[in-house]
Amino acid sequence: MSVEARPISDVRERVHDDARRARVAARILATCSTETKNRALHAAADSVLARVHDVLAANAADLDAARAAGTPDAMLDRLALDPQRVDGIAAGLRQVASLPDPVGEVLRGRTLPNGLRLRQQRVPLGVVGMVYEGRPNVTVDAFGLTLKSGNAALLRGSSSARRSNEALVLALRAALLAEGLPEDAVQLLPSADRASVTHLIQARGLVDVVIPRGGAGLIDAVVRDATVPTIETGVGNCHVFVHAAADLDVAERIVLNAKVRRPSVCNAAETLLVDAAIADHALPRLVAALQDAGVTVHLDPSEDDLRAEFLSMDIAVAVVDGVDGAIAHVDEYGTGHTEAIVTTDLAAAQRFTERVDAAAVMVNASTAFTDGEQFGFGAEIGISTQKLHARGPMGLPELTSTKWIVWGDGQIRPS
Amino acid sequence: MSVEARPISDVRERVHDDARRARVAARILATCSTETKNRALHAAADSVLARVHDVLAANAADLDAARAAGTPDAMLDRLALDPQRVDGIAAGLRQVASLPDPVGEVLRGRTLPNGLRLRQQRVPLGVVGMVYEGRPNVTVDAFGLTLKSGNAALLRGSSSARRSNEALVLALRAALLAEGLPEDAVQLLPSADRASVTHLIQARGLVDVVIPRGGAGLIDAVVRDATVPTIETGVGNCHVFVHAAADLDVAERIVLNAKVRRPSVCNAAETLLVDAAIADHALPRLVAALQDAGVTVHLDPSEDDLRAEFLSMDIAVAVVDGVDGAIAHVDEYGTGHTEAIVTTDLAAAQRFTERVDAAAVMVNASTAFTDGEQFGFGAEIGISTQKLHARGPMGLPELTSTKWIVWGDGQIRPS
Repeated sequence: MSVEARPISDVRERVHDDARRARVAARILATCSTETKNRALHAAADSVLARVHDVLAANAADLDAARAAGTPDAMLDRLALDPQRVDGIAAGLRQVASLPDPVGEVLRGRTLPNGLRLRQQRVPLGVVGMVYEGRPNVTVDAFGLTLKSGNAALLRGSSSARRSNEALVLALRAALLAEGLPEDAVQLLPSADRASVTHLIQARGLVDVVIPRGGAGLIDAVVRDATVPTIETGVGNCHVFVHAAADLDVAERIVLNAKVRRPSVCNAAETLLVDAAIADHALPRLVAALQDAGVTVHLDPSEDDLRAEFLSMDIAVAVVDGVDGAIAHVDEYGTGHTEAIVTTDLAAAQRFTERVDAAAVMVNASTAFTDGEQFGFGAEIGISTQKLHARGPMGLPELTSTKWIVWGDGQIRPS
Repeated sequence: MSVEARPISDVRERVHDDARRARVAARILATCSTETKNRALHAAADSVLARVHDVLAANAADLDAARAAGTPDAMLDRLALDPQRVDGIAAGLRQVASLPDPVGEVLRGRTLPNGLRLRQQRVPLGVVGMVYEGRPNVTVDAFGLTLKSGNAALLRGSSSARRSNEALVLALRAALLAEGLPEDAVQLLPSADRASVTHLIQARGLVDVVIPRGGAGLIDAVVRDATVPTIETGVGNCHVFVHAAADLDVAERIVLNAKVRRPSVCNAAETLLVDAAIADHALPRLVAALQDAGVTVHLDPSEDDLRAEFLSMDIAVAVVDGVDGAIAHVDEYGTGHTEAIVTTDLAAAQRFTERVDAAAVMVNASTAFTDGEQFGFGAEIGISTQKLHARGPMGLPELTSTKWIVWGDGQIRPS
């Protein structure tokens, strides 16, 4: 009987067993040297490349099944692997190997008047659950980042990518075994139904954190039902506000880039806000530029349009009263991801950056820059839109916790 | 009709209305200068002192009701205020005024190759909910720390302290108003039943974080039912492990201090672990010392004893096999708060500090040192035992989030 066909009660047991195995692996990873982890990352890259035919065959089977199920072309493209994409996946692992290891970094330290020596040091989180959709490359990216930060990964990918993910995880586990590391540092959970997600996000005491990566529906469901701490990622209803004092050439360039560069990503702009003071001449020009680029402009947007994360060649447009009108609009409709102002007025720029409550606020720059690689992190596991723990692009340090280590020589605390 | 007598559906409305008011207040506080906040903290201290008679009368009424309900003496003592304790509460506010303001601190920053100037800056969390038991001083401490960090506080105290909390919050709000700040920076939620807790922890989108402070039952309930992000605090099943190579004078001093200094606090020791290699002579000596100090020693502890956070003059004792036996025991029974080893052996100390998974690990020092004031933070809002966001004592910086602010001059991202 395949794992996918087991009854739900068994899925719970399976997830909990996997989590227990992950804990054992995590304990070993937590004290691995950087050198050992880097060697394993290169071995994993080699292993994926050595199994490229198996991976592509599995992916072809996933694609056949998806096509038969009538999956739209855009989603097929996200699912598809080819030799070049597999090369990119392996290169990603080598890049993570080249990044600094956050574990062991001392963040704060002092000697207290009584002689106690205190230090706060980065330690791995432990067992990191990931729930994600679509692309098989996320499987390998998540493994690389969790391993480098000393964590074990419990991966729950999309059922549409099941065969691809299985082939990739097989390659990763083989590399871990060959390097003398615990295979269970990466495990793939069953993806046939939502049960494995539910059991993962409720495995309190076994799983240290769950990071959902996907659409708003997935993330809301995970956050609502989780008892394990979660980090919300990636829902971006991002705005570009063109202020009265904007340079319209700059505004046009930024709006176009923020919308059309890659409409399907979370940092793409979904609404253009235009200052009422310049709407007469700025609006027609910006709308024409967007339409010329093939964007459907929702000029008289419904409430739903204003709330939508289109992730497509659509944009809503609204006219607002100055910088405070823009801030109020973003307060109401934004998802706390990335908000941009285009202006030559310093006071307006400062007011916008101070008052807009979002992970990233841009002045005269495209929303597309909110990204771990662009920020210089080397790689990212997602973009947090919550305020606890991490906000914005999450790199390796965001996959760690801290521990206070206190050395004394017999100190006791007075009453 | 008093708030406390309203039906449950109205409690939800009341909590949501309060949360909305708190959001408005939080927006104002977020951009207040440090000077303004400090002035408000001193005004709040003055206001509490000016109303000391009202506060003590309200507290006397709470105490009468608690006595009539048969509340144990230890709990009555936690609830009781006197002029000296009120002085202490006011002094606490002035001390928070003297601490550095975390808001606006730049944590990271760089100029990217394309000229974008990036900085990551501390910002307030927004609306902070606190759910706590017993002592009325927590009401004022929580207000002081949330205000200084630019947050609005929604406080849900214990019903047993309702009158005391109301009198204190009245004094705090009067001071805010007099200083031209929004009164709704601090609000007290109804405490008649659990409904207000439920609505507070499920007010997703209105409340940014909830910090439960109290016993394991309260914290478990909050974490289980919350959809708002939470920070678990303060459940401490702390161990002192006396290693084979311990100096027994040091061991005795530390075990006694960790147990009897203040048995009711979360950093008190609850289990003594003794290395099997020295149990023959060390165990009788340590047990005798504890018994002489009035501690009930559970020498043949049940599973429940080993899991218990006694918070009383009780301690469980277990014999373990060396440092790995101690680590395994702590892994099974610890709550991730504070764990201590007593040893003269460097390798054992290092192994223990590396492998024990807790907020704080002590070498030859009492568990009682895990405390914001002891660590030099000036004040603490609680001790986090979770791994996300904050771990260990939480001071002002732990009450903030961050925001990336990016300044450009028209940069767009290449495809």
